[in-house]
Amino acid sequence: MRRRKKKGADIRLLSFEEYVIKGEDIKFKGKWNEKFGNSNPIHVEFGTGRGQFITTLAKQNPEINYIAMEIKEEVLLKAVEKAVENNLTNIKFVWGDVNNILTYFEENELSRVYVNFCDPWPKKRWNKRRLTYRGFLENYKTILNSNGEIHFKTDNEKLFEFSLNEFSEADLKLKNITLDLANSEFEGNVTTEYEDKFMSYGMKIYRVEGIKR
Amino acid sequence: MRRRKKKGADIRLLSFEEYVIKGEDIKFKGKWNEKFGNSNPIHVEFGTGRGQFITTLAKQNPEINYIAMEIKEEVLLKAVEKAVENNLTNIKFVWGDVNNILTYFEENELSRVYVNFCDPWPKKRWNKRRLTYRGFLENYKTILNSNGEIHFKTDNEKLFEFSLNEFSEADLKLKNITLDLANSEFEGNVTTEYEDKFMSYGMKIYRVEGIKR
Repeated sequence: MRRRKKKGADIRLLSFEEYVIKGEDIKFKGKWNEKFGNSNPIHVEFGTGRGQFITTLAKQNPEINYIAMEIKEEVLLKAVEKAVENNLTNIKFVWGDVNNILTYFEENELSRVYVNFCDPWPKKRWNKRRLTYRGFLENYKTILNSNGEIHFKTDNEKLFEFSLNEFSEADLKLKNITLDLANSEFEGNVTTEYEDKFMSYGMKIYRVEGIKR
Repeated sequence: MRRRKKKGADIRLLSFEEYVIKGEDIKFKGKWNEKFGNSNPIHVEFGTGRGQFITTLAKQNPEINYIAMEIKEEVLLKAVEKAVENNLTNIKFVWGDVNNILTYFEENELSRVYVNFCDPWPKKRWNKRRLTYRGFLENYKTILNSNGEIHFKTDNEKLFEFSLNEFSEADLKLKNITLDLANSEFEGNVTTEYEDKFMSYGMKIYRVEGIKR
């Protein structure tokens, strides 16, 4: 099924020149700190959606640079609008594809990667499309600096099981594994729009961090 | 609460001299292969209960030496009787305490450790009693040879979550993590008596392997 596109979302999105970079126009692989104008650590979210998660973090942590990546322009637009409303200066938005991250980021350029509630691609033959498939994890490891972290959340048990095994296979050190986030000791959870909805239904949220050795 | 003891179980247990060794009488730390009369790998189950799991494995794998350990003499007796009935020659039973394993086994003496459905000790202040607490894991690592494995199963989600984190903290490589064993791709599962009962209720069984690096 082809995605229904909201007319004009792309033009409106690119009008926020200070905030939005189109994937194919990225010319600062290895130069993101120049782009931000400081040497603060860079944290990236792959699949930002409507941006509640990453803009909340950007508000909470002015000493971190955030990059929010999303391929769907309609939802990315919502995320950008949140940043504009809050006058956030420590966040940029990439309208691009997670398959291309090695062209967007240099080796060791990032300190943290967030993947939240990505598509579970439930059929086994689709496993390579899951954003926690080992191929993706190897790319994340490439652009993460040493001791860089991958933070992953999902409401899908099978995807979580798959992801734990992939994290371990990719030789990441697993940390803060929670099988039911709402009933765990984990503090300071920042939620996505999707997560709020699922938690309100009483559904379980799974979470893990993987540390690059 | 003190355990109710079945009268005479201890005497009957020790009458199976070929099979049963009382913990405090173990004199072959480092000499278990001599005791078995061969150089086959040694796999140990801590908390054997009624022995369905370990005696089934012993029947299936004559080229492996099994040691079944249990502190409660009444249930251990049931396990021993299963081995006697089946004339198993590749299994020994230790009537002993998991707290004392460093006095029973030499460094690098074992190839595999099984922990199945151990007491979850649910209160937080009891965490050090759980058989997957890092203190126990360090002891297992000591007596395991390199690439030795710890195989763990439980029906308790919180204990499993705790255990995954402890395994990772102990620098074990996690493998074959399953959050719902009955609906997983894991093949050849050998069940415990307890597991059969819980699976028949449709309850989930969690499983993980930790490999010593």
